[in-house]
Amino acid sequence: MVPGLLLVISGPSGAGKGTLCQALREEMPEIVYSISATTRQPRPGEADGKNYYFVDKEKFQEMIAAGAFLEWALVYDNFYGTPRRPVEEALAAGKDIILEIDTQGAAQIKKSFPEGVFIFILPPSLAELEQRIRKRGTETAEVVARRLQAARAEIAALHNYDYVIVNDKVEEAVKRLKAIIIAEKCRPQRLNLKLEG
Amino acid sequence: MVPGLLLVISGPSGAGKGTLCQALREEMPEIVYSISATTRQPRPGEADGKNYYFVDKEKFQEMIAAGAFLEWALVYDNFYGTPRRPVEEALAAGKDIILEIDTQGAAQIKKSFPEGVFIFILPPSLAELEQRIRKRGTETAEVVARRLQAARAEIAALHNYDYVIVNDKVEEAVKRLKAIIIAEKCRPQRLNLKLEG
Repeated sequence: MVPGLLLVISGPSGAGKGTLCQALREEMPEIVYSISATTRQPRPGEADGKNYYFVDKEKFQEMIAAGAFLEWALVYDNFYGTPRRPVEEALAAGKDIILEIDTQGAAQIKKSFPEGVFIFILPPSLAELEQRIRKRGTETAEVVARRLQAARAEIAALHNYDYVIVNDKVEEAVKRLKAIIIAEKCRPQRLNLKLEG
Repeated sequence: MVPGLLLVISGPSGAGKGTLCQALREEMPEIVYSISATTRQPRPGEADGKNYYFVDKEKFQEMIAAGAFLEWALVYDNFYGTPRRPVEEALAAGKDIILEIDTQGAAQIKKSFPEGVFIFILPPSLAELEQRIRKRGTETAEVVARRLQAARAEIAALHNYDYVIVNDKVEEAVKRLKAIIIAEKCRPQRLNLKLEG
């Protein structure tokens, strides 16, 4: 059995990772999507066990202690983490799995899964990112400023990634994401070659 | 200006490189195709300056001496070579260029262009390759045996390539080739990022 692809989708907050992953999910329903656990409050429309596993801080820290996370991070005063077992099970079963995580989490994943495919989602410009973050309208000025500063630091890290997708138009970005998945399946180390001779 | 992609399509004789490149050429006419020079005789339907530059051995050796080839090789008693200038001009102008060459030539190109994208075209099995080579019907038994032996040695080299495309169905293989081109344009080192901040 050829193991599945571990696809790590990361990038600054506000780059449109979520929209992109949602669009890909509709086109490629066979891919498994990792569901993160978080201590942050659900936003309107978010459901427990669908968008996130919403847990309290005590529970989250118990899970850290039990080694239940592949990676976890503290971002904007909230914990986020990737449950380990679903990822390991999907890959062992030959299924591709997508992790949509922040750059701190992606860096942790890269240590334990260097064979993963690391994809950085970049907004067309930081100026546009700023607009998007402001337009969301649900954050205070302080939160917006902190996010922009974080975004700039994160963008500097894009050279550690295998691919960068500039998220100018969602349909174009999804096309590139699909192309990356197809291309990565053509890597010689991932082929299960059965040559007779 | 972001330099174009240098796409090197290689693999054993009989793997279907020519058919695949022809199909890609119809779908992506914007890509430049390198035309090799060779001392072999034209096959029926082949035109000078279109499929190859057909030159005699004396002329070919003059070109070698003049440094006019990016790579050249002696294969089955005939010389094949890639003229240097069209490749360098295309890349400098930001155009993608495809070289369809044997594995000896690909190995030479890799020394001078490590940033190229090296794609190995593999027939579904050596048994099928054998059939295809025999079916061509224009070769002697000795030539067929020599080609098969060469093919086996070449297949062993596929782990030196960035991608391997199993050429089971041409339309599927072309899809994968197109995906590789799109994906490679998402490499961070190839992006011409203009970030404001």
